[in-house]
Amino acid sequence: MGHEPRVWDFQQGSESMRNLLGGKGANLAEMTRLLGGSLIPPGFTITTEACVEYLREGNSMPDGLADEIDAALSRLESGPGRTFGDPSGPLLLSVRSGGRVSMPGMMDTVLNLGLNDASVHGLAQLSGNERFAWDCYRRLVQMFANVVRGVPGELLEAEIDSVKATTGLALDSELDITALKALVDRFKHLCEGAPGGAFPQDPREQLAQSIEAVFASWTGARAIEYRRINHIPDDWGTAVNIQQMVFGNLGEMSGSGVAFSRDEVTGAPEPSGDFLANAQGEDVVSGVRNTRPLSELAAWLPHAHFELMSSLRALEEHFGDMQDVEFTIENGRLYLLQTRTAKRPAQASIRFASNAVDEGLLTQAQALMTLVPSQLDALLHPQLSRPITPDEILTRGVAASPGAAAGEIVFSAHAAVAASAEGRDVILVRRHTEADDIAGFHAARGILTSTGGKASHAALVARGMGRPCVCGAAGLEVDAEARELRVSATGAVLHEGEMITLDGTAGIVTTAQIPLSEPELSLQFERILGWADEVRSLGVRANADTPEDAKRARRLGAEGIGLCRTEHMFMAADRQPLMRAVILAGDMDERHAALEDLLPLQQSDFAGLFEEMRGLPITIRLLDPPLHEFLRDPSQLELELAGSGDLSGDRADALRQELDRTIALQEANPMLGTRGVRLGLLHPEIYETQVRAICRAALSVSSQGELPHFEIMIPLVAYEDELRLSREAATAIGLEEGLRAGSDFRIGTMIELPRACVTADLIAKDADFFSFGTNDLTQTTLGFSRDDVEGTILDRYLELKVLDRSPFETLDVPGVGALITMAAERGRSTNPSLTLGICGEHGGDPESITFFHDAGLDYVSCSPFRVPVARVAAAQAALADGRH
Amino acid sequence: MGHEPRVWDFQQGSESMRNLLGGKGANLAEMTRLLGGSLIPPGFTITTEACVEYLREGNSMPDGLADEIDAALSRLESGPGRTFGDPSGPLLLSVRSGGRVSMPGMMDTVLNLGLNDASVHGLAQLSGNERFAWDCYRRLVQMFANVVRGVPGELLEAEIDSVKATTGLALDSELDITALKALVDRFKHLCEGAPGGAFPQDPREQLAQSIEAVFASWTGARAIEYRRINHIPDDWGTAVNIQQMVFGNLGEMSGSGVAFSRDEVTGAPEPSGDFLANAQGEDVVSGVRNTRPLSELAAWLPHAHFELMSSLRALEEHFGDMQDVEFTIENGRLYLLQTRTAKRPAQASIRFASNAVDEGLLTQAQALMTLVPSQLDALLHPQLSRPITPDEILTRGVAASPGAAAGEIVFSAHAAVAASAEGRDVILVRRHTEADDIAGFHAARGILTSTGGKASHAALVARGMGRPCVCGAAGLEVDAEARELRVSATGAVLHEGEMITLDGTAGIVTTAQIPLSEPELSLQFERILGWADEVRSLGVRANADTPEDAKRARRLGAEGIGLCRTEHMFMAADRQPLMRAVILAGDMDERHAALEDLLPLQQSDFAGLFEEMRGLPITIRLLDPPLHEFLRDPSQLELELAGSGDLSGDRADALRQELDRTIALQEANPMLGTRGVRLGLLHPEIYETQVRAICRAALSVSSQGELPHFEIMIPLVAYEDELRLSREAATAIGLEEGLRAGSDFRIGTMIELPRACVTADLIAKDADFFSFGTNDLTQTTLGFSRDDVEGTILDRYLELKVLDRSPFETLDVPGVGALITMAAERGRSTNPSLTLGICGEHGGDPESITFFHDAGLDYVSCSPFRVPVARVAAAQAALADGRH
Repeated sequence: MGHEPRVWDFQQGSESMRNLLGGKGANLAEMTRLLGGSLIPPGFTITTEACVEYLREGNSMPDGLADEIDAALSRLESGPGRTFGDPSGPLLLSVRSGGRVSMPGMMDTVLNLGLNDASVHGLAQLSGNERFAWDCYRRLVQMFANVVRGVPGELLEAEIDSVKATTGLALDSELDITALKALVDRFKHLCEGAPGGAFPQDPREQLAQSIEAVFASWTGARAIEYRRINHIPDDWGTAVNIQQMVFGNLGEMSGSGVAFSRDEVTGAPEPSGDFLANAQGEDVVSGVRNTRPLSELAAWLPHAHFELMSSLRALEEHFGDMQDVEFTIENGRLYLLQTRTAKRPAQASIRFASNAVDEGLLTQAQALMTLVPSQLDALLHPQLSRPITPDEILTRGVAASPGAAAGEIVFSAHAAVAASAEGRDVILVRRHTEADDIAGFHAARGILTSTGGKASHAALVARGMGRPCVCGAAGLEVDAEARELRVSATGAVLHEGEMITLDGTAGIVTTAQIPLSEPELSLQFERILGWADEVRSLGVRANADTPEDAKRARRLGAEGIGLCRTEHMFMAADRQPLMRAVILAGDMDERHAALEDLLPLQQSDFAGLFEEMRGLPITIRLLDPPLHEFLRDPSQLELELAGSGDLSGDRADALRQELDRTIALQEANPMLGTRGVRLGLLHPEIYETQVRAICRAALSVSSQGELPHFEIMIPLVAYEDELRLSREAATAIGLEEGLRAGSDFRIGTMIELPRACVTADLIAKDADFFSFGTNDLTQTTLGFSRDDVEGTILDRYLELKVLDRSPFETLDVPGVGALITMAAERGRSTNPSLTLGICGEHGGDPESITFFHDAGLDYVSCSPFRVPVARVAAAQAALADGRH
Repeated sequence: MGHEPRVWDFQQGSESMRNLLGGKGANLAEMTRLLGGSLIPPGFTITTEACVEYLREGNSMPDGLADEIDAALSRLESGPGRTFGDPSGPLLLSVRSGGRVSMPGMMDTVLNLGLNDASVHGLAQLSGNERFAWDCYRRLVQMFANVVRGVPGELLEAEIDSVKATTGLALDSELDITALKALVDRFKHLCEGAPGGAFPQDPREQLAQSIEAVFASWTGARAIEYRRINHIPDDWGTAVNIQQMVFGNLGEMSGSGVAFSRDEVTGAPEPSGDFLANAQGEDVVSGVRNTRPLSELAAWLPHAHFELMSSLRALEEHFGDMQDVEFTIENGRLYLLQTRTAKRPAQASIRFASNAVDEGLLTQAQALMTLVPSQLDALLHPQLSRPITPDEILTRGVAASPGAAAGEIVFSAHAAVAASAEGRDVILVRRHTEADDIAGFHAARGILTSTGGKASHAALVARGMGRPCVCGAAGLEVDAEARELRVSATGAVLHEGEMITLDGTAGIVTTAQIPLSEPELSLQFERILGWADEVRSLGVRANADTPEDAKRARRLGAEGIGLCRTEHMFMAADRQPLMRAVILAGDMDERHAALEDLLPLQQSDFAGLFEEMRGLPITIRLLDPPLHEFLRDPSQLELELAGSGDLSGDRADALRQELDRTIALQEANPMLGTRGVRLGLLHPEIYETQVRAICRAALSVSSQGELPHFEIMIPLVAYEDELRLSREAATAIGLEEGLRAGSDFRIGTMIELPRACVTADLIAKDADFFSFGTNDLTQTTLGFSRDDVEGTILDRYLELKVLDRSPFETLDVPGVGALITMAAERGRSTNPSLTLGICGEHGGDPESITFFHDAGLDYVSCSPFRVPVARVAAAQAALADGRH
């Protein structure tokens, strides 16, 4: 025939032919090759290339394909001694699509092909079960009408409901033969009214039409849309799998079930699963009947059980991963219908990976590749010791920061700090949070807001601090003034001081008191992280602002601090008045005096960090946020001023002055205003004080001449001269304190503006390091203000499929990523020793980490709780590109 | 000697040796070559390469250079029969620096070198004027002390003041011989105390040290800073010019003056200038004595006058541009000391360029290159018919939009509209302006604000509309509530209705009543614009929103509308209530109804534009600003609500609803929020209405099947799918109205976000054109909110020399420009027929236009009044790159 075969029997194919046979076909072939033909109902696969040909030829069957299918069918009929569509005892077939990757919107399944008005009687005789035969026929015509003729599913369901109503029945399984026959007629009638016409009695015609329907569904609207979003090429095409039917519902020696090669919850090395006697696969999944544990199969059908156990072992060994197998037992004989990698929770993944290496099943590298890094997050936060039951749910919100927390409700940062000082656990509840609330985050066990999404201030800060957080719980009304939390749905009211529990992993709020369990890295997890550290080339640091954060980061394996945000050092309760004095100072003398007061406090903050991180690098970002973030709200000041009849004239004057200054500092777009290095160059004394405090702290903790490895980072640089001037100023202060920039400490910049990326070659000349601030770089590159697009544009764009996920969670590689790659290349072109890191939210996102590895960065920095996740993701990236 | 000469006599060099001889040296050489040795005092130039060698060898004179200088000096001495430093009648020399470009911070001049304690007597005898000789010596020692020994100028001036005080004199020129001798001694004493020591008596030592001082000044701090800012390479070095002194103050047959080859104010083809008898050049410039017009020279010294006239003609012919010449007459003999291109106002430039072509002096291309495009702006606005005198100035502010305007003071857009409706001329006076004020801009003759700079809202809108504007007049206090304008300096108060006059070209405000003159393109200007159109490859369109704008744009030569902002169509007085109804609509029915009301109004707006621009392309941008810009200020609503005791319940409810909706639409960073295409995808009905109005307008004005050439532009696209979805929607509406996208009209996008530049290859697939929105692209690339950085960061950065000009005036080529180049290349890579334009403020800036030409764009679009400027700038860019 002059071309590659377009039809492959299961015995001929293999796993390596995934592109040609699709995922399902390749796995069936591999399983057949591995376990022999008797365990797998025989069948064949029509290749993806046949589909491509079919579509290219304007949806018509390519020359010769029908002959190839016929030949394969003949080989199938030669096997079990039955003939496709034989009226006296037919061979029945299933038809399933199967592309390289699973894809919603593709035509799924037609079962029981081969039945018709004649052979349904043969099946009844053969099975000794007339109702069974008619139910099979009913299912065939129903599926055919739906997926081949395009009759809407609801229309078909409505027919069933109508028959049930007529006969007074509640369940499909109660439909009797008469009812089933009636339904076959009604479904046939619906086929006749649809394009394509009557349900074909000729089994070969049924098959041919089903195959074409699979092919054609590749160009259906939903499939095209899905491919566009997931960047799947249109020219891949789909394969079609045709397999002999087996039946688990043929009597007491039959059954169906699902089996895992290991415990799917704990990962313990014993197979587990469920089955039902005298049932089909869908009955097991639907949960209508109570299933039985796999262990009971041994007593009931020991031979089938033995074969299943051997198969699970063989499949796991062969595929090198936990398997999830569908099986059917037909009259005592075991058949395997499908195998795939078992989805499992984090703890099971860890246990499997560790055990698999001990058992010699996998190498360390292979074991690492079985992990899903994003899942591991769940192991790193306090957890509820039991699930919340549906009737315990108070309300739901966005699962903004994982883990569970319980405590008394408080409505202000101030109350949180006060309660926490008395040793009470509190949950900070706000409509939304602001920079002012930082002290409250520190003091609270968890955060609950009624507005905002995963990228809201509350969510970001909570994740950064590892505080569980539920955001945007729109069903709650927060009345901070009345100190009440009202539940809109029920009208219930909670008051300050009442206990509440959050599950930040699930986004659930409850008043039920559920004990929490504190997480620890298991020994197995630690061991796997050790393997990850051996193979990864990307360093992993943590974003940490306090000694406690630093300690936690180090415990979780951080190799340094990639971002210490110093603004938190100005926000703490004892600092806020001083910082306000700096900003509101009437002249430079007043300002310097206020800064002098701040200096020793900051010095001791830095000393604490340095002590914790001894021997590891610490990147300290100088003050970044606009000054107005440190001031009080103008409306609050106005209110106070309005009620100032009781105040002395001086106090009122001071208030008025504060109000004026506060209003003068307001900005139309604070995101793009007086922040970062701009602040540093407008008010040099602020950065000078910070650098001095850092240098003094370093000297105070140095032992035997060993200084902390600190790095000073200048934020928001757009122009090379901004960095040059800041570097000169910091160098001068360093010298005054006896330290040399370049040798005793390093100076670098955050790259968080598109201009900095484009002109990185110029900026790199004055930088020892770059750290990509991907949060702000995303905002400026996309023109998205995170505060404003969350909940509005982003939601709409996800709905319209303009976006497949938030660019604030996973890096926008074509846009922001391209700028990062450009900046890395240009920066190194003029400064080959430049260190490159990234310290945005994306530093803890596994998919983004793969990009950062590929872009050749030196390290990622993420919140302490994401460090283990990043270590694994970095290892996988290294393994995937083969550089390890 | 084996290398190129490092010393060139003026007779040997030429203009083409500018890189080697510096600008001044090359011009002196060219002038000597052209006019013969006798008119130019002889001299020689030490090359820039000698300077580079000197610096490379650690500030030491290169081997052999001293010999070359000696040889040149000998040739000089062989000429006029005098010897350098001869005690009985010395040859005196001047030393001047002269790089390729003029550069502040370089050592400038030492005069009278060769004088010492002995030769001062020789000079006294030779000149017969002892005071003259001692004054020459005093000047030499003073200049030497200052520029060679580094003694601060103030210290030297203080000595003169002290001598004057002792002798009771007021002017330097009154210093007698005794005083001058005392000063020589004091200056020598200051030299002795400085590094380098005593003033050298040896003339050759004086010369050698002066030459080294010029070389070394190349690496002085100020010079380095200047080069950094102006991107001048450090390795250019400077040349040194050594020239024989001539004296215009030797008696009644001597004099000095400045002459222009044509009238420097009008450009009339007769030489003009000023001179002083018995005076030195600096006396002419200082303005201490009243100068005499050049015409009087003919009567006094006809031969010198004749020689000067011939020289001016010869120099102008030779250099091909108006010349500005310094001359000295020493005992009746004319010497020319310098020639350079004459600076002149716009009208003189135009007249010269036009005449020069008629006279055969220049080709059209050469004539075009003599123009300074940014200057031409002054010809395109109403002008004051006479200058404002100093005592008429009320206050000064930023010259934000050129031209003059006079009218009654009004304090609100509403008052402006009302007064203008009555036919009165008004000036809109505000602290600062907002989108709400647009109607007021239209109604007013000019705009005055007390805050904001050249890139403030007021300035931008005023320039766009061609309204004269003075911004940031900080000396004024605007009290809109009291309807008073207070002048801080004088305490004067102006009330609403009083007359005021603005000069937006100079940034001056006055209450003087000065008549205005309306500008028209002169015939000569029109003629030159015609030449420009022949050579330029860059198209020039205008930004215009109304038929009047369009008419003006067309009259000024615009080849289409590159940006029609439709938001103005929602802002007009009769539209605002309708647009508010759209936004505040309770449900979709209400919203559709409100949009239905807007549709015919918009249709007639578009029809008006189409009529004016018949035959030319019109790019219409769909709605761009965030919705809250169309709503009232929340505080205003709150106020109204607070006083709503008198209002019916319904009215109060409506107010409350409006307030809620207004607050809900507030954004933290509106610049990066719900605008542009985001709005279009969130509320598709708004864009649909606009497209429908445009299509219906096009059909209504089409004649004999000829449709207007309209283009629909989607703003703020970051993702290719945003454009794809918008294009699909607009295409569908077009079809409903009977027009086909692609053939009947085109659809494209503004490129104004960094992501759009980086992913331009993807976006271009759905675009017929790109138009770079450089205003927003600058804001996002640099992370600068124009509203917030003007007057704060930008000022500070100009002061720190981080920036040499505002990136909102002249395009930031290394940053924003690099993204534009990338977008142009990537866009054309997937869509070779893509049209590329630019419609930001930069479209009217000559330097930016050069970049846009070089980047290969198809057209620029600017405000109508800038169109002629852009035509000339585009022609110059084409001529400069030789592509024309």
